[in-house]
Amino acid sequence: MASWIPIPAESDFSLDNLPFGIFSSRHKNKPDPRPGVAIGDHVIDLGALSAVKIFQELAGVGATAMAVFSRTTLNEFAGLGKESHHKVRKALRSMLVAEPAGDYAFLRDAPDLREQTVVHRDDVVMHLPMEIGDYTDFYAGVHHASNVGSLFRDPKNPLPANYATLPIAYHGRASSVVVSGSPVQRPCGQILVPPAAGGDSQVVVGPSNKLDFELELGCFVCKPNDIGVPIKTGDAHNHIFGFVLLNDWSARDIQSYEYVPLGPFSGKNFTTSISPWIVLAEALDPFYAPIRVPPKKTFPYLEGAPNTMFDLNLEVDVELPGEAPTNITAVSSNNLMWSFPQMVAQHTLSGCPLRTGDLFGTGTISGASSDKEYGSLLELSKNGKNAVSLGIGSKRTFLQDGDTVTLKGYAIHPLTGGRVGFGECTGTIQPARSLE
Amino acid sequence: MASWIPIPAESDFSLDNLPFGIFSSRHKNKPDPRPGVAIGDHVIDLGALSAVKIFQELAGVGATAMAVFSRTTLNEFAGLGKESHHKVRKALRSMLVAEPAGDYAFLRDAPDLREQTVVHRDDVVMHLPMEIGDYTDFYAGVHHASNVGSLFRDPKNPLPANYATLPIAYHGRASSVVVSGSPVQRPCGQILVPPAAGGDSQVVVGPSNKLDFELELGCFVCKPNDIGVPIKTGDAHNHIFGFVLLNDWSARDIQSYEYVPLGPFSGKNFTTSISPWIVLAEALDPFYAPIRVPPKKTFPYLEGAPNTMFDLNLEVDVELPGEAPTNITAVSSNNLMWSFPQMVAQHTLSGCPLRTGDLFGTGTISGASSDKEYGSLLELSKNGKNAVSLGIGSKRTFLQDGDTVTLKGYAIHPLTGGRVGFGECTGTIQPARSLE
Repeated sequence: MASWIPIPAESDFSLDNLPFGIFSSRHKNKPDPRPGVAIGDHVIDLGALSAVKIFQELAGVGATAMAVFSRTTLNEFAGLGKESHHKVRKALRSMLVAEPAGDYAFLRDAPDLREQTVVHRDDVVMHLPMEIGDYTDFYAGVHHASNVGSLFRDPKNPLPANYATLPIAYHGRASSVVVSGSPVQRPCGQILVPPAAGGDSQVVVGPSNKLDFELELGCFVCKPNDIGVPIKTGDAHNHIFGFVLLNDWSARDIQSYEYVPLGPFSGKNFTTSISPWIVLAEALDPFYAPIRVPPKKTFPYLEGAPNTMFDLNLEVDVELPGEAPTNITAVSSNNLMWSFPQMVAQHTLSGCPLRTGDLFGTGTISGASSDKEYGSLLELSKNGKNAVSLGIGSKRTFLQDGDTVTLKGYAIHPLTGGRVGFGECTGTIQPARSLE
Repeated sequence: MASWIPIPAESDFSLDNLPFGIFSSRHKNKPDPRPGVAIGDHVIDLGALSAVKIFQELAGVGATAMAVFSRTTLNEFAGLGKESHHKVRKALRSMLVAEPAGDYAFLRDAPDLREQTVVHRDDVVMHLPMEIGDYTDFYAGVHHASNVGSLFRDPKNPLPANYATLPIAYHGRASSVVVSGSPVQRPCGQILVPPAAGGDSQVVVGPSNKLDFELELGCFVCKPNDIGVPIKTGDAHNHIFGFVLLNDWSARDIQSYEYVPLGPFSGKNFTTSISPWIVLAEALDPFYAPIRVPPKKTFPYLEGAPNTMFDLNLEVDVELPGEAPTNITAVSSNNLMWSFPQMVAQHTLSGCPLRTGDLFGTGTISGASSDKEYGSLLELSKNGKNAVSLGIGSKRTFLQDGDTVTLKGYAIHPLTGGRVGFGECTGTIQPARSLE
């Protein structure tokens, strides 16, 4: 579907998408971060638009609710609830189609207002879209879990014993979640070095030599639950605001020494990158398909919602300094064994409260059909055994300083042909900081 | 040292303490939570006092900084930094001694102002003192780690391989940290039930049957660090605001099924209780002693601060419904192998940013000299094998509904005889919520 704002054919931000983010202008006298919506190569400034009476009326959520667009995060907008997200997105869509009906033409037909509220994406800086309360990372990528289990545990029985029944997860670090484009400094930590001939293995302190990416999806919570009151799987959709790409950067050598018995810590908590535009849950509704590798049997508390996952094309590009990017992974998002409603239900079964702005990661997403579907270098290089060819004759087992990793994800709407995607989630490796 | 406010001999809140908290009045027309300082059985209302010009001058942190006492958490006060904490506490102490000098007598000698700003603790409700960004739980209690390792892994080699060199930790759940007195609902989860004769073990979903407490100390962060910039051990004291008691309630059966390979999750994230009064770091300075069981060798990044820990008397009482409390644990806090500065340095070595309001738990504190020094029922009952005698002829392996657990902690100042303590950290077990 066409808009009066030009939308390039390859843009993730068609009229079928309209994702929300927090931006500031690069050049203008408006430095404050504020909410916006992406369309094609442009951003609609919701901060400015929310002061316009006709927009307040068309959005249909009440004039006072418009204050959510004067904030520097999307938490308050998320907190309005799913019906309000739908109304605002629908109004924006009606305003942005090529031929808006009646009042909806107010923006297209007002050059001054367009000048103030439609900004080119080249002229904006993106910020973290939400204030994140807690960040939880699941392990729902069944092929990834299986590949990792084969590398480190038992190739004949690679999945942990609890995997078949339980959507396992760990608490991640909220303070180190950063927006796409932020630098990724190589972390230092304690590392167990294998024995030299005749010697003992030894623990050293220094920069990670096994710095890796993890291809994941992120999911933001909108509606909170009270402590002690679990969310049912069938009601979980009311608590899900939208989705981003997520790169859970991992230092495999730090992680492997630290993780027994308390799980990943310093090997993960240095940086987690997310894409800046939150694709609202409803924008991905057209792309759901039955989960490819579902659990064999689920407990009743994990039932009540369709056993489905959206089917997006996820990609990972790695760009070495001075070279063109190389695509190293292309995989469907529908390789997660547990659905988002099941993750919500599992997280709250204990009574754990979710808050508006909480972030879930899915766990690394890998496919099963070829090693072009692996969502981490750990899997691609078999934990450093097989180097991956990249760029002009270069090879990598793990990431080197200066390497840039970019995650992408999109789907094509089956009826409209509109493309719905996340844009990019990117980060460049910076050298470790000296320990002196 | 005497105050013009009566301080009972057994009070944790002597003039040597002056801990900070967030309270609201139970009876008066001031429902908003606000900062206060505890002394004896009373609370000094810093919200009200900060509007008084002479207090603004005596506190010596500048009139604008007084706005921190109009907030509903202590984050902004913490964010002022250690020198400001010291100045405000010193001014309060000078105001509250029996014979305040000069201007410092302004409160003692003004009955109307006293009436407005000195509240009996019976008339207040305590709230969570800080907005907690991230919550991290260490595992620094070496005897606890050893006892748990003996129960579940190898009694001959009970400590994890990384324990000797690394202050290990896991990310906990910030959203379920509650203030002392909040109810503790028994969580539900997936539990592995041992095989009946001739059968297989089986996973069931239901209420935990192994609900436990964990005796810990909590440490709040005041000064943040930028992402990528580690805090050195020798500088860590500038980042430590103060301390509380912390009960990391644990569902042992849920935890034991879930924790491999990602660590504790649902077995911990239902509730963590903390005592309401934050004892400022400087109030515990007189109680430091060399760490009893220090690490055999530490890497340079963990050196730079004295290898000491304060020596407080920690106690756990359990009260069964309708009975008097029974003391089941009495242990020194100086049974942690790693110091707080080492925890700060370890947490940030990877570049992980700390924020004002972040909370660290120490891990469970147990002693080595007798089983009266165990900081959890897991250890006291040998994972349910030996019931503990409690109350009038009752026994417990783990907690039952209606049981109340109260943590206490204090020390006596070696010179002044003043008592410095936390008050209580208490919680009563509520029945599990029906899964229907």
